[in-house]
Amino acid sequence: MKILRYRSDAEVSYGILDAGGRIRQLEGCPFESLDTSGAVAHLDQVTVLAPVETPRIIGVGLNYVLHAREAGKPLPTNPMLFMKPTLTAIGPEDAIIYPHQGKEVHYECELAVIIGKETRRVSEADALAHVLGYTCGNDISERVIQFAEMEMGCMLLGKGFDTFCPLGPVIATDLDPNNLDIKTRLNGEVVQDSNTSDLVFSVAHLVSYISAVMTLLPSDVIMTGTPSGVGPIAPGDTVEIEVEGVGVLRNPVVAEA
Amino acid sequence: MKILRYRSDAEVSYGILDAGGRIRQLEGCPFESLDTSGAVAHLDQVTVLAPVETPRIIGVGLNYVLHAREAGKPLPTNPMLFMKPTLTAIGPEDAIIYPHQGKEVHYECELAVIIGKETRRVSEADALAHVLGYTCGNDISERVIQFAEMEMGCMLLGKGFDTFCPLGPVIATDLDPNNLDIKTRLNGEVVQDSNTSDLVFSVAHLVSYISAVMTLLPSDVIMTGTPSGVGPIAPGDTVEIEVEGVGVLRNPVVAEA
Repeated sequence: MKILRYRSDAEVSYGILDAGGRIRQLEGCPFESLDTSGAVAHLDQVTVLAPVETPRIIGVGLNYVLHAREAGKPLPTNPMLFMKPTLTAIGPEDAIIYPHQGKEVHYECELAVIIGKETRRVSEADALAHVLGYTCGNDISERVIQFAEMEMGCMLLGKGFDTFCPLGPVIATDLDPNNLDIKTRLNGEVVQDSNTSDLVFSVAHLVSYISAVMTLLPSDVIMTGTPSGVGPIAPGDTVEIEVEGVGVLRNPVVAEA
Repeated sequence: MKILRYRSDAEVSYGILDAGGRIRQLEGCPFESLDTSGAVAHLDQVTVLAPVETPRIIGVGLNYVLHAREAGKPLPTNPMLFMKPTLTAIGPEDAIIYPHQGKEVHYECELAVIIGKETRRVSEADALAHVLGYTCGNDISERVIQFAEMEMGCMLLGKGFDTFCPLGPVIATDLDPNNLDIKTRLNGEVVQDSNTSDLVFSVAHLVSYISAVMTLLPSDVIMTGTPSGVGPIAPGDTVEIEVEGVGVLRNPVVAEA
């Protein structure tokens, strides 16, 4: 099933996206119920929004074997975690704002996990039952700032600029997160091309591990890390993230006014 | 003026705390208006809550000269920033839960800044006009996990356990954040005793610097760092944080069930 959040006229709703672009509106939010209201819309007539609004976003660093190798780092023995502020989240077609301070801003395609229910100290075996579904994420990162922060032992601003976390277009349920093709196209050219089977720490492990420290809440997003092939973007570029079974998340890059 | 958030019967309100313990209820929340409703309560009859509910919390590391020295670190050339998850926030008298994974859990008294309005790229000169006020904060930290994370270049879990950010008891406005005594008492004994004049980066600088990356929102909290004298807590302890002009934030430490 594919769940999307959309605006139709002034109204924001969740809905279920059927083949052919038909949208069956949900009565409320999918973290509470998947009951439909009876109202129907069509994909062509709505604006697709980020699948969750201003979520808490937890990021994972160096979580693909080949990406750790290209970064010249050893594989982490525990997940390397950070947070992206809520206002990094934007939806499909929204502009990634290239900030004044930007010197080396990179795309990072990621499988984004949407938590479905309150989760505390869940076992790895039970973890995926706490996930509502998956979407495409782009963990935009300003490397000069990020690396200077990591040098000090922290990570926030380099990954924390407003608009630095495109998410969407849908929440796909019923996927096996351990075997999904994932790629980035920059201006149409494939620049990252991998599969989540290369993840160092699986989705189930991440959910279990994080929930042993902090209670996870419905609509929380875990960005599971990026594969090899990261590289720079510039104003005027278009970045597309594609995750198998989810679809394509496309965003233009625009210079800060 | 001292603003507090409190529960009276089942109702949660904001109010203005007058000398003598009288509370004049606000009509709404202090980020919108300080209009009072006419209703009056008394401090003895209410439960004081964390002054903001599940706020976004930004922390600052190594921001006191003597603390950087005791940590054996050079003074940072830029603020060292991280986030504490929303569920770290608790109020006065709430229990700090000492987690199963806890090996070396430390108190950290801090001046906590409560942002009053949406703030983006504010100058240092204008920054304090975007602050609603100040409260006491306790940036509880599990050092073994924190230091292992910093080794990797990130900081989240060591400072991110549920209940690891006591805040309160009031939001004090009209303070000069550059000259406030700040201390910690552990079971009645003073263990940290400093003044915010020892801050490496001032409150105005922090607000300006952070807002140049991420838009700050009303109710955001900036934990401005801790002075020297950090040390361990254990279940059964009581920690009190006192900031001049704010009051005392007291919390017991309780082992996780």
